[in-house]
Amino acid sequence: MADAPVPDFGADGLVAAVVQDAETGAVLTVAWMNREAWEATLRTRRATFWSRSRRELWEKGASSGNTMLVRDIRLDCDRDAVLLQVDPRGPACHTGATSCFFEQVELPAAPEDASPAP
Amino acid sequence: MADAPVPDFGADGLVAAVVQDAETGAVLTVAWMNREAWEATLRTRRATFWSRSRRELWEKGASSGNTMLVRDIRLDCDRDAVLLQVDPRGPACHTGATSCFFEQVELPAAPEDASPAP
Repeated sequence: MADAPVPDFGADGLVAAVVQDAETGAVLTVAWMNREAWEATLRTRRATFWSRSRRELWEKGASSGNTMLVRDIRLDCDRDAVLLQVDPRGPACHTGATSCFFEQVELPAAPEDASPAP
Repeated sequence: MADAPVPDFGADGLVAAVVQDAETGAVLTVAWMNREAWEATLRTRRATFWSRSRRELWEKGASSGNTMLVRDIRLDCDRDAVLLQVDPRGPACHTGATSCFFEQVELPAAPEDASPAP
């Protein structure tokens, strides 16, 4: 692991982590990682984050049982974002929804220049 | 649109925006939106972000031609993250890669407790 790439944790020590269901491709949630959360995720293969509100390390599902087994990890081109592909053991969202992204925003009518080219 | 949900732009005025290919489900990139970028995205249906490094509004693909037509927008449960499902008109990454998430991180051998239950 000595040469394994490491995220650029930036000025606040955090990177955004996107969590995607490895089977369905659904984006389940976005959370934050500091170095400790990153290392815990690699070590345990369970998605672990930094809670910005509670200011503590947080293994996803530690209390609910809805852990996320990590299948694949990727960094983006400037290493300031992480993509986790996971097998979720239950709903990702504290509301009980499969994904935290359940609120759809109605788009206004398509502008003309967004139509497919003829 | 008066009642359309709006992201919670937080203390720094930004939310993380995850961009997913509407057809393949691939996560293409993560970028940032302020209120102006959000409103421009809704109005034009082309993914528009706030560049934290250049400190300017940035329509994805405005210079490269690799714009992203927005098909669906969702907010997460606390409205501090945005999911855009898009039809990309070219590579998402400035490197020419389809997705910015091309750097795979090798995972250490699975710990015993990550094995499926018998």
